[in-house]
Amino acid sequence: MSITTTTPELIRAGVEQFYARHMQLLDAGEAEAWARTFTEDGVFHLPGRPQPARGRAALAEGARRAHAERLDSGETHRHWHGMLDITPQDDGTVRVRCYALVFATPRGGEPRLHRSCVCEDVLVPSGAEWQVEHRRVTRDGF
Amino acid sequence: MSITTTTPELIRAGVEQFYARHMQLLDAGEAEAWARTFTEDGVFHLPGRPQPARGRAALAEGARRAHAERLDSGETHRHWHGMLDITPQDDGTVRVRCYALVFATPRGGEPRLHRSCVCEDVLVPSGAEWQVEHRRVTRDGF
Amino acid sequence: MSITTTTPELIRAGVEQFYARHMQLLDAGEAEAWARTFTEDGVFHLPGRPQPARGRAALAEGARRAHAERLDSGETHRHWHGMLDITPQDDGTVRVRCYALVFATPRGGEPRLHRSCVCEDVLVPSGAEWQVEHRRVTRDGF
Repeated sequence: MSITTTTPELIRAGVEQFYARHMQLLDAGEAEAWARTFTEDGVFHLPGRPQPARGRAALAEGARRAHAERLDSGETHRHWHGMLDITPQDDGTVRVRCYALVFATPRGGEPRLHRSCVCEDVLVPSGAEWQVEHRRVTRDGF
Repeated sequence: MSITTTTPELIRAGVEQFYARHMQLLDAGEAEAWARTFTEDGVFHLPGRPQPARGRAALAEGARRAHAERLDSGETHRHWHGMLDITPQDDGTVRVRCYALVFATPRGGEPRLHRSCVCEDVLVPSGAEWQVEHRRVTRDGF
Repeated sequence: MSITTTTPELIRAGVEQFYARHMQLLDAGEAEAWARTFTEDGVFHLPGRPQPARGRAALAEGARRAHAERLDSGETHRHWHGMLDITPQDDGTVRVRCYALVFATPRGGEPRLHRSCVCEDVLVPSGAEWQVEHRRVTRDGF
């Protein structure tokens, strides 16, 4: 099945599955596998950073460092994407504007809402999978 | 494509897309565009109000006022709908009972869970779109 | 329509609907109806318990007791499943690894994030419905 021939409804199911696996890889510290869910030259604008991360090596490095910090601090993070506003484009890519939350739980402690953000993605088809070509995350409160 | 000929699975995808756009319009302060996602005479029973809001003018006015208050207070609100229990009706309408959360982030501060609610909607097809004909929101804790 | 002939996209819609109803039954204290969304001999490994709950009678008893405790304490709980990573198996079953949150609201008070967990399910088709054959929930922070 080619992604580009599917209907909006089927695109939605595939995009939801993509984000589920994508975020579970990130939270599990699978930095290289997570980076491969971006295009080779994928761009990620993070809030509070003057320059975006560009390319899988930089993306993996950032994910690895963030996960090491969480291991050091003993916190578990869970990234939730939701309220996906999905707009298929004529060129076969998909634009998504969604909300993103991060829930954090310290070792032996109570969970808390850590971040509330807006995430704007351009997803491109790669075989039967989606990849992030461009991401911009903006943090609420700033 | 007519909404009324689609399967439950396709209805689900369309309803999820509807809520995503609907809530993003509300949180962005797009009061008139949000009000147009209700039927002309749409009814919204809000928790703690003796009378429902009726019709797009009243709905837009309520959304505008709430957004102005958030701008004044410097808080960003994000409405999340989830756990959608969707029941298509024989007349082409759809009943939805779902959970609704509001996350709030003050300017320069930490996000918090602001509200946990239950939302019961009757959605009706309008061309290729859904509209809210009737909504009842009940707030947890009351 | 037989579940086993549907595509991954249609499976996703059905699984989402299943969880929505499943969790709303649990939160509403409909213990017997909730237990029937498991197989007859369904197994539920709860965090912090040495033995899993096995079979519908034990599952219903656990749900009834938990709901009675919530009524006593005056708290409303809302279970949210999200970020569903769904893997259809060759034998017609479906494996799901997802995140699970519990939001709690005391009577007259403010809502809070109560639990952040990971839920791993094996779902099996039963007519046009899904049932939980095996569930393992692990609580973040432990």
